[in-house]
Amino acid sequence: MNRKMIFYILSWVLRIEAILMLLPIITAVIYREREIRFFVITAIACAIFAILISPKRPKDMKLYTREGFVSVALSWVLLSVFGCLPFFISGEIPHFVDALFETVSGFTTTGASILDNVEGLSHCMLLWRSFTHWIGGMGVLVFVLAVLPTSGADNIHIMRAESPGPSVGKLVPKVRSTAKILYIIYLIMTIVEFVLLVCGGMPVFDSICISFGTAGTGGFAVKNTGLADYTFYQQMITTIFMILFGVNFNVYFLFYARKPKDALKSEEARSYLLILFAAAILITWNVRGYFSSIFESFHHSLFQVASIMTTTGFSTFDFDAWPSFAKAILVLLMFIGACAGSTGGGIKVSRVAILVKTVLKEMSSMIHPNSVKIIKWEGKPIEHNVLRSINTYLATFILIFVTSLLIVSFDNFDLITSFTAVAATFNNIGPGLAIVGPTRNFADFGILSKCVLIFDMLAGRLELFPMILLFSVRTWRKQL
Amino acid sequence: MNRKMIFYILSWVLRIEAILMLLPIITAVIYREREIRFFVITAIACAIFAILISPKRPKDMKLYTREGFVSVALSWVLLSVFGCLPFFISGEIPHFVDALFETVSGFTTTGASILDNVEGLSHCMLLWRSFTHWIGGMGVLVFVLAVLPTSGADNIHIMRAESPGPSVGKLVPKVRSTAKILYIIYLIMTIVEFVLLVCGGMPVFDSICISFGTAGTGGFAVKNTGLADYTFYQQMITTIFMILFGVNFNVYFLFYARKPKDALKSEEARSYLLILFAAAILITWNVRGYFSSIFESFHHSLFQVASIMTTTGFSTFDFDAWPSFAKAILVLLMFIGACAGSTGGGIKVSRVAILVKTVLKEMSSMIHPNSVKIIKWEGKPIEHNVLRSINTYLATFILIFVTSLLIVSFDNFDLITSFTAVAATFNNIGPGLAIVGPTRNFADFGILSKCVLIFDMLAGRLELFPMILLFSVRTWRKQL
Repeated sequence: MNRKMIFYILSWVLRIEAILMLLPIITAVIYREREIRFFVITAIACAIFAILISPKRPKDMKLYTREGFVSVALSWVLLSVFGCLPFFISGEIPHFVDALFETVSGFTTTGASILDNVEGLSHCMLLWRSFTHWIGGMGVLVFVLAVLPTSGADNIHIMRAESPGPSVGKLVPKVRSTAKILYIIYLIMTIVEFVLLVCGGMPVFDSICISFGTAGTGGFAVKNTGLADYTFYQQMITTIFMILFGVNFNVYFLFYARKPKDALKSEEARSYLLILFAAAILITWNVRGYFSSIFESFHHSLFQVASIMTTTGFSTFDFDAWPSFAKAILVLLMFIGACAGSTGGGIKVSRVAILVKTVLKEMSSMIHPNSVKIIKWEGKPIEHNVLRSINTYLATFILIFVTSLLIVSFDNFDLITSFTAVAATFNNIGPGLAIVGPTRNFADFGILSKCVLIFDMLAGRLELFPMILLFSVRTWRKQL
Repeated sequence: MNRKMIFYILSWVLRIEAILMLLPIITAVIYREREIRFFVITAIACAIFAILISPKRPKDMKLYTREGFVSVALSWVLLSVFGCLPFFISGEIPHFVDALFETVSGFTTTGASILDNVEGLSHCMLLWRSFTHWIGGMGVLVFVLAVLPTSGADNIHIMRAESPGPSVGKLVPKVRSTAKILYIIYLIMTIVEFVLLVCGGMPVFDSICISFGTAGTGGFAVKNTGLADYTFYQQMITTIFMILFGVNFNVYFLFYARKPKDALKSEEARSYLLILFAAAILITWNVRGYFSSIFESFHHSLFQVASIMTTTGFSTFDFDAWPSFAKAILVLLMFIGACAGSTGGGIKVSRVAILVKTVLKEMSSMIHPNSVKIIKWEGKPIEHNVLRSINTYLATFILIFVTSLLIVSFDNFDLITSFTAVAATFNNIGPGLAIVGPTRNFADFGILSKCVLIFDMLAGRLELFPMILLFSVRTWRKQL
């Protein structure tokens, strides 16, 4: 294992985190908040630690899969540990595990909170909290790749470990250029949402935070009521952008590359929109009695469906009070999640769709054993190892889910709370049902449960394997 | 499709059902119950219908996979429809869907009931209800195979469709002999349990019914309190036999064939016992506060664990009142289920174990991409198509489960009720949690939900595919 190279990457991640802290520092200057010092201290600590662990560029820049996984997992852990320091040392979140939970929830774009009173935080803290969503949405390592001065050829291992979805395509031959294009699309879309929200009368500060939360499909709001108190227009803009950020970024790249026809053909984006609108219509009908008009019912249903399916986790309505059918659909959407290659979490639409196609094919071959049928996805036959990796993913997903559920249920909350707490963190959504419903929070869990949920958020965001490998003894053994 | 052959098989199944009704008829004679006439009428109806649909042996006795699946699915449906007639025409279960639910629950060895007052049934009805478990446990078609005068070579398709587990081994070269051996082992074990229960002071009638329920891993009891009122010894015997009937029958065959060393090596039986006792010990510790001694806690924990894991569904204690951790373990065991090739349901220990092994192997190959590792099960490398069929099974299982959950949640019970109702029927267990907990029943569900749960019980018992193919249009098209 090339440890020097891992340290080098970690060092870069921390340097960038130190620079990113300029944003809350500027906010603190604008609002004349004394909390500025906690960000300055943390930024300096980050920078010093970064220089200490890797003072100079290593000679051997080679990276294998194993190093890729380990770098990514460790980067996210370190990023979160340093990222939570402002909350912790300022005392705004008094317990370290709580501060870490909130920060991991931010970076992993989960949006699950342990705070009862969000409005009690200072502006710079709130901004940093929402900014972590934006940083985590596209991926920190992708950002590092865009700026890191390495040879470049081996970086695909990092990108593969951090990017969501069953297979990673390089948009352009060079990983570094791909990373840059992704970040540019991401930045432009965030700015457009921000402008539209400000034009709709939302305060600038709220608009920035909500745009960060939407773009990263995070879900931290800046009001205790979530998004319930914003205007109809503001909620609608948020709905549209949640849906847009749940689409595979390849689609936007194809538009950017002036291939709109190919973009519109995307099977994953179509399946995603189909599921999303079908669910919204079913729920609209199921909860029509809760609203004065069918239109209002559709507005809130679509918002909640988009919020859960894209794994954002904003809410305009306490859907925990909805009928069981609506809640069952929402829980199902928690697991399906958004498109691969988007900023959203969950199992991903492409994995689910490929599994459904496989089942249909297998059944057809039971009826006609001699017929040969090939399953296609996005117009191409599905390769055997893609299918195998999806099956492994599903089995691993279930194993981690079940283990987490068993540990969390030690806290003896009802099973709906335990189940949806794990589902909402592992799929990076945020709110669940019952005690972790949209009007409640995760504060009441014990320390062990919080640690498990922190692991789940990281494992969910990094597509399971980097986090598991980090805790596997075999990873740290010398190469065989 | 060879329809004549399908009718021929169905005809045989119904003839056998008519003969099997002799047992409740004898019971009615002993207890001088007037309900005898309903069984006589049903038996005659069965026999007439059987002769009408297939008056003579078809010339072409060929059976392909498709016919195998269809025969099995239709046999179970017909068996249940005729089997529920005594309940329905006697008025002891006034609604047809309820009577069908109870009978399907019997044949599929589920044990989920819609009856509030079991003790209100007459003896012959109670005996028939428990006898359906025994018939369904080893499989009706296996029985037909043991007696059917066919050429025999193609019967493996039927056995494959009806037998639980990822791969069907013929114990001996001839399918017919295999079926006979299985039934002999099954009969002897049932008799031993009966004798032990009677020796322990249980009334003969109760002993017969409880032995039928244990052998088929069914779960219908003859008292409203389930097994709570029986003595400690009687509960213990039941525990031991539940565990024994959850073991792969191959193990008993190996003993029968005087290969005890091979029998003891069975990886599935070992994994099964390991999970079972680990779960029992964890729950013993978790619920120790509910009992006066740790020994009593272990007794009840082991009973409930054995009952749920073997998918029997008897209960001595209202485990719905237990803490969340214990309940979470029980829900998990619902899905794991018993060994393949036993009379139990669920996903089966071998499938779960193979999936876990696959995950571990894939992870190891992420760390060491160049290492080649082969996963073994029962001492042999796992073939590629076995693994593929397990993955297909898992994906199909999830799809049916989710669809059922969505439909059942229309009834607007809480999610725990809907979730465990589907889990308890689909895995052929019986009781779930909350409204379908061990002291409650399935009576309150709507007709649509009951139909879905009936489908789930049949699909669960027949390992998904026969029931799905029955409802697939493509099955009924002419061969391509």
